[in-house]
Amino acid sequence: MAEAVRHDKTARQLRLLSDALDSGRLGPVRRLVNTLAPAEIGNLLESLPPAKRQVVWGLVDPEDDGEVLVHVGDEVRESLLADMDPDEIVAAVEDLDIDDLADLVEDLPDTVIDEVLKSMDRENRERLEQVLSYQEDTAGRLMNPDVVTVRADTTVDVVLRYLRLRGELPEHTDHLYVVSRRHQYLGRIALQVLLTHEANTPINQLIDDEQPAIDVVESGDEVARKFSDHDWISAPVVDDGNILLGRITIDDVVDIIRDQAEHQALSAAGLDEDEDMFSPVPRAFRRRVVWLGVNLCTAFLAASVVGRFEGTIQQIVALAVLMPIVAGMGGNAGTQVLTLMVRGLALGQIGSSNSRTLLWKEVRVALMNGLTLGTLLGLIVWVWYRDVELSLVITSALTINLASAALGGVLVPLALKRMGFDPALAGGVILTTITDVMGFLSFLGLATLILLR
Amino acid sequence: MAEAVRHDKTARQLRLLSDALDSGRLGPVRRLVNTLAPAEIGNLLESLPPAKRQVVWGLVDPEDDGEVLVHVGDEVRESLLADMDPDEIVAAVEDLDIDDLADLVEDLPDTVIDEVLKSMDRENRERLEQVLSYQEDTAGRLMNPDVVTVRADTTVDVVLRYLRLRGELPEHTDHLYVVSRRHQYLGRIALQVLLTHEANTPINQLIDDEQPAIDVVESGDEVARKFSDHDWISAPVVDDGNILLGRITIDDVVDIIRDQAEHQALSAAGLDEDEDMFSPVPRAFRRRVVWLGVNLCTAFLAASVVGRFEGTIQQIVALAVLMPIVAGMGGNAGTQVLTLMVRGLALGQIGSSNSRTLLWKEVRVALMNGLTLGTLLGLIVWVWYRDVELSLVITSALTINLASAALGGVLVPLALKRMGFDPALAGGVILTTITDVMGFLSFLGLATLILLR
Repeated sequence: MAEAVRHDKTARQLRLLSDALDSGRLGPVRRLVNTLAPAEIGNLLESLPPAKRQVVWGLVDPEDDGEVLVHVGDEVRESLLADMDPDEIVAAVEDLDIDDLADLVEDLPDTVIDEVLKSMDRENRERLEQVLSYQEDTAGRLMNPDVVTVRADTTVDVVLRYLRLRGELPEHTDHLYVVSRRHQYLGRIALQVLLTHEANTPINQLIDDEQPAIDVVESGDEVARKFSDHDWISAPVVDDGNILLGRITIDDVVDIIRDQAEHQALSAAGLDEDEDMFSPVPRAFRRRVVWLGVNLCTAFLAASVVGRFEGTIQQIVALAVLMPIVAGMGGNAGTQVLTLMVRGLALGQIGSSNSRTLLWKEVRVALMNGLTLGTLLGLIVWVWYRDVELSLVITSALTINLASAALGGVLVPLALKRMGFDPALAGGVILTTITDVMGFLSFLGLATLILLR
Repeated sequence: MAEAVRHDKTARQLRLLSDALDSGRLGPVRRLVNTLAPAEIGNLLESLPPAKRQVVWGLVDPEDDGEVLVHVGDEVRESLLADMDPDEIVAAVEDLDIDDLADLVEDLPDTVIDEVLKSMDRENRERLEQVLSYQEDTAGRLMNPDVVTVRADTTVDVVLRYLRLRGELPEHTDHLYVVSRRHQYLGRIALQVLLTHEANTPINQLIDDEQPAIDVVESGDEVARKFSDHDWISAPVVDDGNILLGRITIDDVVDIIRDQAEHQALSAAGLDEDEDMFSPVPRAFRRRVVWLGVNLCTAFLAASVVGRFEGTIQQIVALAVLMPIVAGMGGNAGTQVLTLMVRGLALGQIGSSNSRTLLWKEVRVALMNGLTLGTLLGLIVWVWYRDVELSLVITSALTINLASAALGGVLVPLALKRMGFDPALAGGVILTTITDVMGFLSFLGLATLILLR
């Protein structure tokens, strides 16, 4: 329901826009587009086929260009940049926050980067270079060096006068940071604390030093986790000497959380979260064919198991009819366990201390499922083929395959994680190979042993 | 890599805790647990098997009990509540924020709810009843009625004096809300604006009325979307008469975004995001068996297609060996398209105006994949069986099935959405049924037509 509302709204905008584009009336399109926030424009551009996308991109207020570029996936961004002059690009990005600019800079042509650097003042250029010196997906790349600092040996009144002199504060400033003479991070003061204390209160009585600073080399995932565990709005970033380098704000963290979720959902299907929905057919083909090729290899592995039993199938052709059921059910059951494991691993909830308990639980659940559904399946097969032995074979085979699925569902992601691979990416392919192979092997193997006696 | 760091850290905590629990030394466990934030304790409790979970839960500082309850899934929460006396529960929840309390209240026993209501003062009781009067998953249920309001006809100085008198502000207050005499929402003033303007500045010069208020009946998804599109930290909530009712803060929105992502990942495998990883075997069994039962029915549908061709398979047993490849590859390719569609629909990026373009693109990609991989498959089959006609049959069947997969991958989620169902939940089952049926039908059907001439 809820999603439907959202969907209707954007779909209506899309339709309005499409109709206006089709009729060539660009005035209304421009007006519609420029009532939207940059992130919304980005969303809209991502949902337009290339030709219309370029038209709408040309109508976006140049002031918003930079922010829109920040809010689209890599592949769409590339297509938008391809459409701009170097001058336009420089104008678009030069007013961005340092962290956003750092995010974009790698996608820009070298000549443009030089121009952008030249257009910046020395302080900002140094800040950008500093941010870029940290590895992608670390706190250093997420931080904005623009922070407001105060000294501990002063009073509320002095700070208030300083702030009035300074004028506007950086966006989402909810705390001032207290630093030593050597710019070491000592603690923070909430704006609301400043507002609710008398003018003559010494600053050092108001310092909150409970929130630990974030280490500049910490991973983006770790940063996101801390923000959501502690309900932070912003957090200071320090180097290993505790020198304050910048601050990370919740809006960037929300983007990380969204990206993580997309990555997990898409990588399970062998997709990239930066893929343009309307990317050119040859490009989409090249990307998909690799993944499908891997799956083709695993399918051959399963087929070669069936090939071993050609003689059995020749004698009892019902086996060919029923074998996809045994294999497929294993795949379904295994995917359930795998999905729970991938989530548990991502949340850090699964380790050596509880994985055995989990494995044992899942195997028991699988045995109950196997006996229940296996018996049901056996009954149906009996009604279909009137062969008690065939029924017993499929009941046993399903139970064996569901138990294998549970074992694989728990152990495959644990092993992948230990080897440093992403369980969300490779887990599904490996697991369904196991359940296919085990399904065919147990069903056709038992059939050969029991039915061909 | 990034995830591995987090994983190592929590896994180490888990191991330490487990070792300490095993040895019966509860002192270190208590100390370890109470260095953690409530959300971290919740995460830890979710990763413990029931027996250890109850021990650790007994060691949590009672002051944190309420916040921990807010941060665990429904099923784990139930198990924790089952362990507490009514008095303990009342003590745990009575200091929670109204929005958190509203979130919990439905899981509490009726007698406890009465006790909690009695322990509250009249103002808070009325606020709670108001929040509870809105539907779950709407802005009304997410908001906290505790807001700081000021009048427009005053000055910065007066407001500052009022704030100093008032003392502490509600958590995450970044704006004060300006209301009329009738409590209608007029706009907001950032704390940093108050701090950077002279004492005698009139408030009505500082009002920001650009951010639209959130309607109290808006869905949680819509609220989350707005927050992330506009980088909001907090937003006012109003009724249809523009009366200010409360405010929503980003920390609750982060929870919604996480829940959405979990829901999407888990529902595709027929799982519930509130499932306890260690739920009792009979309960887990009951839940899983329903989903697997549905899949069993669809597997029979596919098997019955194979059953139609028993005669053909009897004559050419190679077909039984190869048919799972054709069906399985269709499933893989279809899942890729479905995953992209589910994401696009969730983001509101797909509507009637672009779905045809998308369909056409995906069909072309599928045809290229089909011809490439089909030819490869045909070659391998030729090497294996030395039968040109069989090779041609499998090449054509794979191409047909990949094209069906693309059609189904685009059309199934669109149709589900239109009928008001969740494409993430039912899409996979329907789609793999289509690709299984089409895979068997095209391969065995073509084989019957061409090879048995």
